Amino acid sequence: MSKMWTLKVVGLGAVAVSLSVELLVRLFSHLRAKRTINKVLFFPSEVACVEHLFSTLSTHSCLCPLPHGVETSFSRLLHHLLSASSSLNLCVFSFSEMNLSRALLLLHSRGITIRVLTDKDYSDINGSQIGALRKAGICVRCDRTSVHMHHKFAVVDERLLITGSLNWTQTAVQRNKENILITEEPDLVQPFVKEFQRLWLNNDPAQKQKQ
Amino acid sequence: MSKMWTLKVVGLGAVAVSLSVELLVRLFSHLRAKRTINKVLFFPSEVACVEHLFSTLSTHSCLCPLPHGVETSFSRLLHHLLSASSSLNLCVFSFSEMNLSRALLLLHSRGITIRVLTDKDYSDINGSQIGALRKAGICVRCDRTSVHMHHKFAVVDERLLITGSLNWTQTAVQRNKENILITEEPDLVQPFVKEFQRLWLNNDPAQKQKQ
Repeated sequence: MSKMWTLKVVGLGAVAVSLSVELLVRLFSHLRAKRTINKVLFFPSEVACVEHLFSTLSTHSCLCPLPHGVETSFSRLLHHLLSASSSLNLCVFSFSEMNLSRALLLLHSRGITIRVLTDKDYSDINGSQIGALRKAGICVRCDRTSVHMHHKFAVVDERLLITGSLNWTQTAVQRNKENILITEEPDLVQPFVKEFQRLWLNNDPAQKQKQ
Repeated sequence: MSKMWTLKVVGLGAVAVSLSVELLVRLFSHLRAKRTINKVLFFPSEVACVEHLFSTLSTHSCLCPLPHGVETSFSRLLHHLLSASSSLNLCVFSFSEMNLSRALLLLHSRGITIRVLTDKDYSDINGSQIGALRKAGICVRCDRTSVHMHHKFAVVDERLLITGSLNWTQTAVQRNKENILITEEPDLVQPFVKEFQRLWLNNDPAQKQKQ
């Protein structure tokens, strides 16, 4: 009889262990899936104060007349850009929005490696931020072909993709109907990591002089 | 002794069943994850014949001078659009590319419900396909606000999102540097399904006349 009990205990124990393993595996996959960022932002964005994203001030210490403590599509975009801890690769057709430029300058001052690829036709128009980025020492390259370098994407830490219809201009952010998609899905991020590298090398001025 | 054997068999059977369930669950999740479309297309696309996508002809029966049997970014885009079996919602700033227009006309002739939302500034420029779509009976609405309706996305069967920097023009497809992202990830698709519905209702001419 004691042998029979041993067998019962061993059998049920084995079932319990394998069920627990399954539950743990499922819980882990669930938590992992939850952690993968996959979100969409639509524009025009409400206009609100974003000072707290650039300093250690609380949302209510700023005295500007804009609404405070409001989360908007634009503040979410800035938040994701400012999450960079090692690199930011940006490929954007036109770039004139002041706070996006400020975000890049802040990341640069923190030692984040920034590379900006833009279209020649829009790099020196009125209000373009490209000159300010260059002056601060950020590495910028211009696509000088006769066609448009029409991308509008950024890759943060080779891990997070930010892409969509939105050019980095105030009109796009505050007036147009636009979208931005933010994802960590490797099947979507990795092709952009590679394409950035390809375009960056293709637009190396040193290489072009040699050709 | 026979009871002990019964217990052994029951115990091991239970372990076997629970392990098999775990394996099946894992296999199923794996296959499901593999089936979820998540891909990126870059442009400019190579130019190749796409006639076989519009008819039952084989790739080599067409006699046009373009390369045949070549899969390109553009043919992949057409393939995904033509996979629609119930609906296609399109929100695009400018639309002048002939084969994309042909794809919509073919889907319309198959009874697929198509809704097109576009920007008023680009709906009647030279080469725009919007007039041809309207003439064929496809439902088109124009954003008539003073700002740009700058989106370039399509949702196929409320399941597959096609979005990126690419306007539906020949220059964008064949010359510019552009991207398109194709995904079935519900966290990315559903916000676009809702945004399309919101924009569609906001641009209902009947509602506007009432206002």
